[in-house]
Amino acid sequence: MTFQAKTPRVDPSRMANAIRALAMDAVEKAKSGHPGLPMGAADIATVLFTQFLKFDARAPKWADRDRFVLSAGHGSMLLYALLYLTGNETMTIEEIKSFRQLGSKTPGHPENFVTPGIEMTTGPLGQGISTAVGMALAERHLAAEFGGDLVDHFTYVLASDGDLMEGVSQEAIALAGHLKLNRMIVLFDDNGISIDGAISLSDSVDQVKRFEAAGWAACRIDGHDHDAIADAIARAQKSDRPTLIACKTTIAFGAPTKAGSSKSHGSPLGADEIAGTRKALNWDAPPFEIPADILDAWRAAGSRGAALRSAWEKKLAAVDATQRAEFERRMKGDLPVKALTDAVANMKAALAEAPKDIATRTASEQALEALVPVVPEMVGGSADLTGSNNTRTKAMVAISANNYGGRYVNYGIREHGMAAAMNGMALHGGIIPYSGTFLVFSDYLRPSLRLAALMGERVIHVLTHDSIGLGEDGPTHQPVEHLAALRAIPNLNVFRPCDTVETLECWQLALEAKDRPSVLALTRQNLPQLRRSNDAANRSAAGAYEISPAQGEAKVSIFASGSEVSLAVEAQTQLVARGIPTRVVSVPCMDLFLEAPEATRSALIGNAPVKVGVEAAIRQGWDAIIGADGIFVGMSGFGASAPYKELYNHFGITAEAITAAAEARLKR
Amino acid sequence: MTFQAKTPRVDPSRMANAIRALAMDAVEKAKSGHPGLPMGAADIATVLFTQFLKFDARAPKWADRDRFVLSAGHGSMLLYALLYLTGNETMTIEEIKSFRQLGSKTPGHPENFVTPGIEMTTGPLGQGISTAVGMALAERHLAAEFGGDLVDHFTYVLASDGDLMEGVSQEAIALAGHLKLNRMIVLFDDNGISIDGAISLSDSVDQVKRFEAAGWAACRIDGHDHDAIADAIARAQKSDRPTLIACKTTIAFGAPTKAGSSKSHGSPLGADEIAGTRKALNWDAPPFEIPADILDAWRAAGSRGAALRSAWEKKLAAVDATQRAEFERRMKGDLPVKALTDAVANMKAALAEAPKDIATRTASEQALEALVPVVPEMVGGSADLTGSNNTRTKAMVAISANNYGGRYVNYGIREHGMAAAMNGMALHGGIIPYSGTFLVFSDYLRPSLRLAALMGERVIHVLTHDSIGLGEDGPTHQPVEHLAALRAIPNLNVFRPCDTVETLECWQLALEAKDRPSVLALTRQNLPQLRRSNDAANRSAAGAYEISPAQGEAKVSIFASGSEVSLAVEAQTQLVARGIPTRVVSVPCMDLFLEAPEATRSALIGNAPVKVGVEAAIRQGWDAIIGADGIFVGMSGFGASAPYKELYNHFGITAEAITAAAEARLKR
Repeated sequence: MTFQAKTPRVDPSRMANAIRALAMDAVEKAKSGHPGLPMGAADIATVLFTQFLKFDARAPKWADRDRFVLSAGHGSMLLYALLYLTGNETMTIEEIKSFRQLGSKTPGHPENFVTPGIEMTTGPLGQGISTAVGMALAERHLAAEFGGDLVDHFTYVLASDGDLMEGVSQEAIALAGHLKLNRMIVLFDDNGISIDGAISLSDSVDQVKRFEAAGWAACRIDGHDHDAIADAIARAQKSDRPTLIACKTTIAFGAPTKAGSSKSHGSPLGADEIAGTRKALNWDAPPFEIPADILDAWRAAGSRGAALRSAWEKKLAAVDATQRAEFERRMKGDLPVKALTDAVANMKAALAEAPKDIATRTASEQALEALVPVVPEMVGGSADLTGSNNTRTKAMVAISANNYGGRYVNYGIREHGMAAAMNGMALHGGIIPYSGTFLVFSDYLRPSLRLAALMGERVIHVLTHDSIGLGEDGPTHQPVEHLAALRAIPNLNVFRPCDTVETLECWQLALEAKDRPSVLALTRQNLPQLRRSNDAANRSAAGAYEISPAQGEAKVSIFASGSEVSLAVEAQTQLVARGIPTRVVSVPCMDLFLEAPEATRSALIGNAPVKVGVEAAIRQGWDAIIGADGIFVGMSGFGASAPYKELYNHFGITAEAITAAAEARLKR
Repeated sequence: MTFQAKTPRVDPSRMANAIRALAMDAVEKAKSGHPGLPMGAADIATVLFTQFLKFDARAPKWADRDRFVLSAGHGSMLLYALLYLTGNETMTIEEIKSFRQLGSKTPGHPENFVTPGIEMTTGPLGQGISTAVGMALAERHLAAEFGGDLVDHFTYVLASDGDLMEGVSQEAIALAGHLKLNRMIVLFDDNGISIDGAISLSDSVDQVKRFEAAGWAACRIDGHDHDAIADAIARAQKSDRPTLIACKTTIAFGAPTKAGSSKSHGSPLGADEIAGTRKALNWDAPPFEIPADILDAWRAAGSRGAALRSAWEKKLAAVDATQRAEFERRMKGDLPVKALTDAVANMKAALAEAPKDIATRTASEQALEALVPVVPEMVGGSADLTGSNNTRTKAMVAISANNYGGRYVNYGIREHGMAAAMNGMALHGGIIPYSGTFLVFSDYLRPSLRLAALMGERVIHVLTHDSIGLGEDGPTHQPVEHLAALRAIPNLNVFRPCDTVETLECWQLALEAKDRPSVLALTRQNLPQLRRSNDAANRSAAGAYEISPAQGEAKVSIFASGSEVSLAVEAQTQLVARGIPTRVVSVPCMDLFLEAPEATRSALIGNAPVKVGVEAAIRQGWDAIIGADGIFVGMSGFGASAPYKELYNHFGITAEAITAAAEARLKR
């Protein structure tokens, strides 16, 4: 727990000034960026990184390192300076000089997929602090599973006013407080300044009181007083609750005229101000040069975790081989391939034998009953819709402050905080988080889902009640634009399976997509099982496939997803009865299909003179398959409140409507 | 301020039981719905509606009525029962019996566009309480403008645990506390139950302390004690701060076995439980029948505001005619057509005379300088990006707790709360709210924007930094999927103007779209003014138009929006130089264009053999114009951090790339 510092060999204030100099000089050279935060928070970072943070700069992927999340991602130069100073191998001074340039390791905001040593991509405010909750939860969960010898670290966050003003921060702190995640320590850079000016223009919240109300320990300190910072962190480490340390700081500390002003937030200081800052801080070194004694001291701080890491590796080596292999597998993110494949095959065989006409949310529940036991890294949850999302298997025990070893999180009515926490678990490693809410509420969690896609994190969102098929709850609860809006996010797979078999296949694909989040859009209403043969191959993997071929050359091709595939098959029967050869293509994942080579796509789309797309949602996106002149049977606006079968009739999404439209087009 | 009740002629508990009976019977008949909340909150509602709420059930649109927002929209039967009992003319007992049926006035969640007397559409949790902040702010603002004789009312909210768990609630209460909106009173139905079970499964927040931390008055009471409820509301009315009244209630109060249990939250109680409830509540009346004395008492409560309304109408009649006409115009939502039209015409003339090659965000600022003075109902703001969104005109004064008469809101870093508050201002009437953030952060406010679209409210979101053109801030800040994702929302206009003139035209269209929200997607980078003639007509109104025709029959049609229109025009020059007749169509609003009749669309799309779409965003949606085989020059994934011109080159969004692709296709 305690990780004492070596006695610093230089004045720690000068070490902090090294951060300030690098930050202001890099921003100046880039002609854009945010010098204010790194300069204001330099003292906090210096104390944390030299006295507390358990890390080895040369081994940024060490599993049991403390996590440090710069929630205020605009202050990225703070992180880059720290990485350079502590001796991260990627972060050369040349990279610092290339701040915000194409191809550099120093983009405008920290990007974990670009720069080793950065825990997560931040910038959109509120995400860092909320994601860190998931990291802190992952730590407690894995400690419960693998023991404190292997998993025993803190999660630190540096957060700004903006992070705390964002609503998602409330969801996060409420969850962390409820779960008593006492390994989470938030250092609040309380500088009283935002882009528009003083925080007092827009905010009067007593943050200490607010965090206390959420079950946190909280205190206020002078964020430039190294002893006060150290005392507060030491106390936080011993707390039985997560801790907020509100550090009163001066933004752009040291700048003669712009310190304490919003002018230093997001613009270069300018040559004169920088000269004045050098003078005020007694900093003589030229830009991008760090005096040797200071760099030495920083490098010592960066390597002081090496011995701890060696000791930890010895502990790992001493662990029972099976347990060690399992720990390593999980931290690498590799799946238990054999067990998973067998479970899928067994369930497929069972479904072929005894088909089930059930809602895909129920099919998902049954898939989970098969998968969760054999993929122990799966940690489920729901934003208070467990019984509707069907995300909890019978054996799953809830995670609570008294039992971190459970595998189910009651996230509460906090979709956004849930998605952020899921990102944190995935980033921590060792866990594949999945969770649920209604598809329409994907809007609430979108910023976190986008970050998951950008970072390439494997999180799986079970989004049920995926159309007007949910019925009486009406248009506030009926997604119509959400499938399109989610498909629009790059590097996200949106699955919408049509039956029990596709649901299972989509689950398998989601688990196997190591570098990509997935959405499973599932129905409330029952659907017939269309796939009745026992296919060894995962047919959904192509994104789209012919689920019901034509007899002879097709005159009509119907493309559909999810609950509308069975309507398409019904229409096929009607059309065939009228002498019109028709084929049906199921599109369980349009994203995967559109990624296929053009020849593959063209071959499946085919040359039938009439192409019909069917989805109980808006048309946007479907033109890529059916063409701008294709027929689309779906929604063109918001839904309505009524029993679902009436709604399908009311909005004209029926086999009869498909048949009539196709027939009319053929006669045109 | 005080609005004393007549002495109730019947036991108020029996009046509350009338709500309970209607709620449980309607849910039972519908076979779906939420009986728990109406039954639990019936006492709160009874006290509020019989003793405090200033309303006249026969005149639900009376401008100075108190607003009542059922934030917990799933408890819709509470509202429907109240509307019926108090004598709302639309809400017959037949409508109550048609709960959740197609075409009824009683949909699953309250829909203000369906049912007169309902202030807003609720259901997505957190929206009601957050929207109410805008209503309360509108009240103070209009009182400052038109005087307390005309505008003097409260905004009441009934909120559930779920509302308070949603992050947007924090943004809302922080804003309300900061602005000291003391006319806002939140009745928290503190029943300790959510869908998954006891709130203690997922939450430990001390809500009273949390609201106090946000600058609210707050107290705890027994939510079934009518005197306590009345006392608390009376005190809240006198507070100098907004007030939270945490009312401890029993969900499904009266139900013998399901009261206090999550089983009563979202399912019918069942015949036996209903029989038991009737017994426990001493309620003998058959389903949907209300004993005459109770109905009389309720009807008296519903009409007790009639006299006040008459008095208010006399006050209005006594107001100076100009002022009265202005008040009535604003509350009707009519624009000052002549002044607006003149301002647009004048600015167009000036731009034709002296074209400006500026960023569209700057063009928007200049449009605002022309429009804000002549459209006094415009109230601007930004989520702490004022200098980047260019949303504040020079003369605009900030709204603060000391000056509600200002016209600019410093929303803080609270995009979601901002959008919800804007909805509230629009719903209140008298205000056209506009505000700003970065386009990428539209993800944060999406749930509120969707509600605005569903309700048909005129709110205008200025979303700047609309592509990789923002440069160095990198992929966390660069929208690529957001234009598509926003266009996907029904009944929302997404404008992306290409120059100063289109920006002005789009502003005009946004203001004129009375029943629809609008987004203005604007650049950070400078753009040439392409429209140099003084067009009297608003060419953007069609959504798309030929901005640069071909000489002769076009072989290439280029369709582009925003910053890419000038690239299209450059490519046109290059192609023409190669002997290839080319036309350019500007698409400032794809939504409007796609709403046009097919003939209009086909005519503009034309028959050029090569069609190219250009937008620094993903392709989704463009196939509707260029076809599935059209050429698209844009983004296929996330952006990167670098100066913007380098990014355009890096991602191949250049005139040269357009030219090369079109030429290659022609040769194919």
